[in-house]
Parts: sequence; structure tokens; C-alpha cells
Amino acid sequence: MKITLESTFGELSFKGTNERNQSLQLSGNKESVSPMEAVLMSVAGCSAIDVEVILKKMHQKIHKIEVKVEGQRANATPSVFTEIHLHYIITGDVKKEKAQKAVEMSMNEYCSVSKMLSNSVIITHSFEVHILD
Amino acid sequence: MKITLESTFGELSFKGTNERNQSLQLSGNKESVSPMEAVLMSVAGCSAIDVEVILKKMHQKIHKIEVKVEGQRANATPSVFTEIHLHYIITGDVKKEKAQKAVEMSMNEYCSVSKMLSNSVIITHSFEVHILD
Repeated sequence: MKITLESTFGELSFKGTNERNQSLQLSGNKESVSPMEAVLMSVAGCSAIDVEVILKKMHQKIHKIEVKVEGQRANATPSVFTEIHLHYIITGDVKKEKAQKAVEMSMNEYCSVSKMLSNSVIITHSFEVHILD
Repeated sequence: MKITLESTFGELSFKGTNERNQSLQLSGNKESVSPMEAVLMSVAGCSAIDVEVILKKMHQKIHKIEVKVEGQRANATPSVFTEIHLHYIITGDVKKEKAQKAVEMSMNEYCSVSKMLSNSVIITHSFEVHILD
């Protein structure tokens, strides 16, 4: 897998582009998403994709998946995440035990982003299901 | 640091939003950047920001910073990165030894994204400088 990142206009601003020519803007000056914020989005995105795939295989009808993520950072340089908590809010005609199973399968087996971080960061999760027929 | 991720239209598509209401679109269906691609962009972005800050402190005139990143993935589930190589192309009125120092300071001391990954992934780097007065 390859990406290219290059300076864009403005200070500390960079655009990352993948092999399909799709881009994300990142910056170190609060004018766009920061790299550390993008890491939290990557963990949540990776896991939400897993949860959607797994719940569909379980024939659950998903209306929406939301993940609220909070990262605690070290008071040091580099200011790595020490803990990341993901809270899943799954809305749909979804059984609670299926949602729990899907979230656990993602966090324990499938999510490659959380797996890579888990040797450095304590990653925890919780979930709620909002029933919507 | 907090982010929220939520389903958008389409399958396996999610939007991550930070506390300043800035968003990135991610997906698992190749319609936008994938979470694993976003991880590569986050490492490169984090480090490029460091390199820009450090080179400016060294009074070097930067025209452009580009980082080409390649990630090797495990042939397993989860398909984590086993190796990530970052190649920096720094263009400007920049001394080669200053560029080398800036890249090494980022990779060895400052870049929080690569630091978090470095317990799981072999991260290597190289660089070239294109002189432009």
C-alpha cells in the first residue's frame, strides 16, 4: 500500500493522496484535521467497517453506526496516546447481543489499526444499541 | 482529544469529525481513503509537520516537503502493517545535513504517530534534498 504526502498552501499543511488519487488534508495548525486526530478517526473507521460487515452477516438491519472516541495523551514529547476509548452507538433493528459480539470481534480479532496501536496504547470500548425497526 | 465517527450514505462509508468540526471521509469500499491508508498519511503528516518546524528553526528555506510512504501488510487477519518506509523529498534552499538532522529528530524523538506504531511495526526512512534557491 502506498501513499504520497505533500505540502499544500499555508504553513504546516499537507495533503495525503492514495493510489486511487483520493486525498485527505492534514495540518499542524488547526486549519484542518491533525495527524493525531486522523489516527483516532482511523481506529474508529477501521472498527466501524468491521462492525457493519459483521452485523450484516448476522442479518441485522443497521440504520446508523456512530463511534465516539476519546484519546488521552502523554504529558511528554512525543505526546503519544496512552489510552483510547471507543464508544459505539448502534441504531437499527439490531439485537444487543449481536452488537456486543460484532464490537468484540472487531476489537479482539479484526481491526488492524487498533491491533497495531495495542502494543503501545490501552484501548477500551463500550457500546449502546438504539432499537429502530 | 475527541473525535466522532458516523455512517454516511453508502455502504462501509464513515465521516470522522474533530472538536473544531473538521471532517475526513473514510471507507472500506475504495470510494474514499481507507483507514489503513489514513494511518500512513497520519505518520507522514505528523513527521512532515515536525520536519517543517525543525527546518524553519534552522533557518532553512523550504519550497516543498513530499513524503512517499509504502506499507507492507501481514498476510493474515488482521492485516496489520509489518513495515513502513518513509522517503522524504525536501525541496528548497536546504542544507543536506540539516535535512538529515530534521528527519532523524522527527523519527527518533518527536513524531507521536510513528512512536505509537513503532512497538508493532518496523519503520524505516530515507531522504533526498533538491536544492532550489
